[in-house]
Amino acid sequence: MSLVLDQQAQDLLFRSARTANSFTDEPVTDEQVRAIYDLVKYAPTSLNMQPLRVVLVRSAEGRARLVERMGDGNKAKTSTAPLTAILAADTDFHDEFHRTFPHVPNVRDWFTGDDAVRAEVARFNGALQVGYFILGVRAAGLAAGPMTGYDAEGINKDFFPDGAHKVLAVVNIGKPGENAWFDRNPRLDYDDVVTTA
Amino acid sequence: MSLVLDQQAQDLLFRSARTANSFTDEPVTDEQVRAIYDLVKYAPTSLNMQPLRVVLVRSAEGRARLVERMGDGNKAKTSTAPLTAILAADTDFHDEFHRTFPHVPNVRDWFTGDDAVRAEVARFNGALQVGYFILGVRAAGLAAGPMTGYDAEGINKDFFPDGAHKVLAVVNIGKPGENAWFDRNPRLDYDDVVTTA
Repeated sequence: MSLVLDQQAQDLLFRSARTANSFTDEPVTDEQVRAIYDLVKYAPTSLNMQPLRVVLVRSAEGRARLVERMGDGNKAKTSTAPLTAILAADTDFHDEFHRTFPHVPNVRDWFTGDDAVRAEVARFNGALQVGYFILGVRAAGLAAGPMTGYDAEGINKDFFPDGAHKVLAVVNIGKPGENAWFDRNPRLDYDDVVTTA
Repeated sequence: MSLVLDQQAQDLLFRSARTANSFTDEPVTDEQVRAIYDLVKYAPTSLNMQPLRVVLVRSAEGRARLVERMGDGNKAKTSTAPLTAILAADTDFHDEFHRTFPHVPNVRDWFTGDDAVRAEVARFNGALQVGYFILGVRAAGLAAGPMTGYDAEGINKDFFPDGAHKVLAVVNIGKPGENAWFDRNPRLDYDDVVTTA
């Protein structure tokens, strides 16, 4: 075995963990989300930019608005999950560089020229953090049900009226319920993915 | 503590782990990369599309070509790391759906209409997998030095002449060397990142 990570942690985060499609009624507390964030915040982003923002949809009204924007196959599980989180990228992440990259005073200026480039950088680094967040949910002993099938413009309008945040994924979170997962789909082989130059 | 993941694993993957800027001479073997891939391949992507492809730059000629394309601040460490991997997205990931999503025979057709949309989906899901890969490197007891400062078009041309692969990140991998890291930059607070709706 070439891994240092213990087997139990490998199983919890990767091998036994599955995308859940149903959940029990057990609530997910703010303390659990706080513990997840306090772990995954340390994983790296370009220039430490940390564009990820998270909206916990707790109100009945917020839930109803969100479900309406989800694709048909995602509506039922988003209606019933103990907690649903909207993960988004803050395209104005550069306004935080004075706090996140304080030793380079002019780094904000690198990102003021082209809004489309800045949005793309936010999306890429936000996606890294979505990956970290999903593993963080699992680290808390919970199952994640990440989804990308929804009306993104509608979610952006409803939940981020400032126009500066763009949804990256919607994630149901909770303890897995009955028949929570489908059969696991095949993964590509090492030799399909890794080559040498 | 709201986390189930043990403290040692938390430290290995997130809390003590750091982006390395120098490395020892100790080689990184193909067996180690195989173990990393065999772990992180299980983490989720949309429709199980798995667009990530990895090029291990092992030859002196490949290394020289790559270093030339790196930004000035990334050249020295990319010259000397025991292993450098180019992580890229295969924008023709949909050609693998017959293997990766076999229960929905027509899913490939959803992605044939718009090459730009397909490239964007590949980039987003590839970025998720870059995040998983970085944590996988750490799971192998190694340090990762992910970089996004380079001539992307040049790398694409040099290493992916088929035109269908787009570099996402270049990652130095090895045991951390002397003065391997800078001071850790601040992370955003929970209340800056997480809100409730």
